[in-house]
Amino acid sequence: MNIPRVQFLFDFGSPNAYLSHKVIPDIEARCGIRFDYVPVLLGGLFKMTGNRSPAESLAGIRNKPEYELLETARFVRRHRIDGFRRNPYFPVNTLQIMRGAVAARHEGVFDQYVNAVFSAMWEQGLKMDDADVIRQALTAAGLDAERLLARSQDAQVKAELLANTEAAFQHGAFGSPSFLVGDELFFGKDRLRDVEEEIMRQREAGKAQ
Amino acid sequence: MNIPRVQFLFDFGSPNAYLSHKVIPDIEARCGIRFDYVPVLLGGLFKMTGNRSPAESLAGIRNKPEYELLETARFVRRHRIDGFRRNPYFPVNTLQIMRGAVAARHEGVFDQYVNAVFSAMWEQGLKMDDADVIRQALTAAGLDAERLLARSQDAQVKAELLANTEAAFQHGAFGSPSFLVGDELFFGKDRLRDVEEEIMRQREAGKAQ
Repeated sequence: MNIPRVQFLFDFGSPNAYLSHKVIPDIEARCGIRFDYVPVLLGGLFKMTGNRSPAESLAGIRNKPEYELLETARFVRRHRIDGFRRNPYFPVNTLQIMRGAVAARHEGVFDQYVNAVFSAMWEQGLKMDDADVIRQALTAAGLDAERLLARSQDAQVKAELLANTEAAFQHGAFGSPSFLVGDELFFGKDRLRDVEEEIMRQREAGKAQ
Repeated sequence: MNIPRVQFLFDFGSPNAYLSHKVIPDIEARCGIRFDYVPVLLGGLFKMTGNRSPAESLAGIRNKPEYELLETARFVRRHRIDGFRRNPYFPVNTLQIMRGAVAARHEGVFDQYVNAVFSAMWEQGLKMDDADVIRQALTAAGLDAERLLARSQDAQVKAELLANTEAAFQHGAFGSPSFLVGDELFFGKDRLRDVEEEIMRQREAGKAQ
């Protein structure tokens, strides 16, 4: 059976990445597949594409920001997501915590790290561009904060995050969250149903070969 | 049984309104319901909200316009829509043909008019802000073009189009296509699955009462 590679291109700074992260386990269970989490730097993607965050592009527009909030509320309700709240320090500079994600993979603690940082950002509402706050949050999650922060400064870690971001751009990404099912790009939490259908389609196509 | 009112707020100038129009009959058949087509002036909504067309807001951004084209192609394929093509005169000023839609309802030829104008815009690629072109397109569709064009100039018709647009704004709309299921707003062709689910949900809630 041909199982497609499914990538979740994410930046912790995106609330929609957090919301997707909460729904991905259900899709994984239904599809019998694991998503490959790929840390990318949203600020880098914005620079490469000229795209802007919704906070910027929706500023001053009437009705549209309210509608986006409504759709977020619908998504939370539909998927019974508990504990989500806006981060009061938004936008948070995510360079440090994104490098930390790459470091955490090298240290073999990627899943714990991702859960801890998403929770710190979008459940606890912490200021996760402050080194002390990061340290406390990682420690509270049972992670070796000093080791991860040190590893985050490795040239290899920095280069890997940039390479991920460049590859995302080359695949057509312009924001977070983005998904790749094989080479098929999907943008936004609201495409998760399409992502799931595309996984199933590629699996069926693989079987037929 | 409590059947919700379902409104399709549309402007002929929006390709996504055309694509929605092609899919609505399937939803109507599955739900046993008719959508209420409400002509609104997209230019008016943009003025009221400060929103802009995708053509403007995506200009100069890399990857995002290409992604929108990809999602349009996916939508067309998914729903097996034949004959869609970009209008070479885009953006077309739709004031005249939107007033015509209101006039056509008063004349009892609304459905024929809507099909004829959507086809002229997004299948035939005609310059539908030119009075002669409009006249030819309506005549070719078996409509009384002179009568409709004259009726379009009625103060009542003009006022009705503005009132529709103002009501859409009051309901939270900021673009085309928008949908209202009862008071629940949905924006964009990609929300049609949610529109269908909301129709079913409100019907079930109505039964339970």
